[in-house]
Amino acid sequence: MKYCFGVDIGGTTVKIGLFKTDGELVDKWEIKTHTENQGEAVLPDIAASLKEKMQEREMDTAQVSGIGIGLPAPVDENGIVKNSANIGWGYKEVTREMEELTGMKVASGNDANVAALGEMWLGAGRGHKNLIMVTLGTGVGGGIIVNGQPLIGAHGAGGEIGHLCMNYEESEACGCGNKGCLEMYASATGVVRLAGRRLGADDSPSLLREGELSAKAVFDALKEGDQVAGEIVEEFASYLGHGLANIAAVTDPSVIVIGGGVSKAGSILLGYIEKYFQEKAFFANKDTKFVLAELGNDAGICGAAKLIL
Amino acid sequence: MKYCFGVDIGGTTVKIGLFKTDGELVDKWEIKTHTENQGEAVLPDIAASLKEKMQEREMDTAQVSGIGIGLPAPVDENGIVKNSANIGWGYKEVTREMEELTGMKVASGNDANVAALGEMWLGAGRGHKNLIMVTLGTGVGGGIIVNGQPLIGAHGAGGEIGHLCMNYEESEACGCGNKGCLEMYASATGVVRLAGRRLGADDSPSLLREGELSAKAVFDALKEGDQVAGEIVEEFASYLGHGLANIAAVTDPSVIVIGGGVSKAGSILLGYIEKYFQEKAFFANKDTKFVLAELGNDAGICGAAKLIL
Repeated sequence: MKYCFGVDIGGTTVKIGLFKTDGELVDKWEIKTHTENQGEAVLPDIAASLKEKMQEREMDTAQVSGIGIGLPAPVDENGIVKNSANIGWGYKEVTREMEELTGMKVASGNDANVAALGEMWLGAGRGHKNLIMVTLGTGVGGGIIVNGQPLIGAHGAGGEIGHLCMNYEESEACGCGNKGCLEMYASATGVVRLAGRRLGADDSPSLLREGELSAKAVFDALKEGDQVAGEIVEEFASYLGHGLANIAAVTDPSVIVIGGGVSKAGSILLGYIEKYFQEKAFFANKDTKFVLAELGNDAGICGAAKLIL
Repeated sequence: MKYCFGVDIGGTTVKIGLFKTDGELVDKWEIKTHTENQGEAVLPDIAASLKEKMQEREMDTAQVSGIGIGLPAPVDENGIVKNSANIGWGYKEVTREMEELTGMKVASGNDANVAALGEMWLGAGRGHKNLIMVTLGTGVGGGIIVNGQPLIGAHGAGGEIGHLCMNYEESEACGCGNKGCLEMYASATGVVRLAGRRLGADDSPSLLREGELSAKAVFDALKEGDQVAGEIVEEFASYLGHGLANIAAVTDPSVIVIGGGVSKAGSILLGYIEKYFQEKAFFANKDTKFVLAELGNDAGICGAAKLIL
């Protein structure tokens, strides 16, 4: 079998990749995610798009190993989703339904786990079997690979590292209802929160007092040598580096991959995070490498494809 | 194949169990651990003891699935130990050497991971595939089972949950060299540390001011309604419950098994730990069960046997 499909379902678009089983991306395209009517069209739309592509390329199912699917919700080991607000789904047997629609083998997983698998297969984590991927976006997502397999857990909620409590004194609440979650300090939104608090604390001059406050603005100001931005990044990095040291003590990775919008700040970010990681890492974890994610938006389709191989 | 052996190597004795592959413990015995000369006799002694037992019972190797070994050091996926101070070993290819000595299939693992596997197979974790076992002894040991397999990690150091940092303000150092590790508050030694600090803080009357201070004394005083002991246990439980909530966010277990000497305080312990766990658990982890370990000193031989099955 020469080919497989990787499908990355998001709330707005579905990204689809056609891969050779050795990892070569042959084709990729997108379709719209029709979330109306509890997202009833989402899987049939994907199945139709795959069939169309196979006809276009004169492929038959005997040439395809199967279809891997990543989606934004916890997915259990049987490919069942309890609820996915972004897609409109309630309870959904994703793997079974897609197998019935296509007649091909299907595997499904949570998008953060799947992105981690993608980076392990074709990106920054190549050659590693024990890996943590952290996605620093609007929230903080996590995907953990143990011995080459995603850590799914009992509820499909493995790797929810954005919800580690890192501050037992916090007074504000996280979106999850708890207080002091890593996500409140290490996401793009979290960096803005830290910046707002720091800027409000005194009148020190800063580039950040002009224009709109964003995570990008903070890292841009850091690169300009802005001292206040430096303090904000130190605080961000202390939460993230200390949190990752704790996660490493539990899962013992050989590499930690940093991705998501905040990681666009580039390699300057890694030095800050590593400093605080080293400060608290258990001795066995001191040689854990830090790298920036390489696959960007393709991590989802790559990892989804790997799910089926 | 009807039988397998489970071997639990400690610094003083080696415990050995002969099991049927369905989990029935047929026989168990101990031999001395000869740690002198870099522990060169340890594996040959075990091999000789197994052979003797097989002769005594008129068993041949065709009836034995293999030998599982648990030992007090990180063990990588190839059964290699870099260093085990308690046994006297430096670098040792445990699995390969034991296979050569016995002609049987061997699998080796870290004792904390192996104990967790034992509780999953024959103890308090029966029926679960995602489990955390916490051993509260002189230190805090951890074994994590993900989808039925021990989480070994890149350096064989998976599940080192005693070394999560739970207090970034701590001034004293843990045995590992860091400050604020969970082990400093949740081990038997840790409870004594918390008790010493609390008793030194003021002159409140307490049963703990008489006799020798120990973790057992603290829990005994708690059961007598001693208020100071109650405060110490609350503090112990807050560190442990909060730490376990963070570990659960990462590994998503369905059950957490509490074992080790401190767990002899009994089920009163679980309520305290669960209270703080619930305070900080991510919503997907709120239904995680807490149970006391059931196998006691047999967890090691049981889990070692399961390693090979």
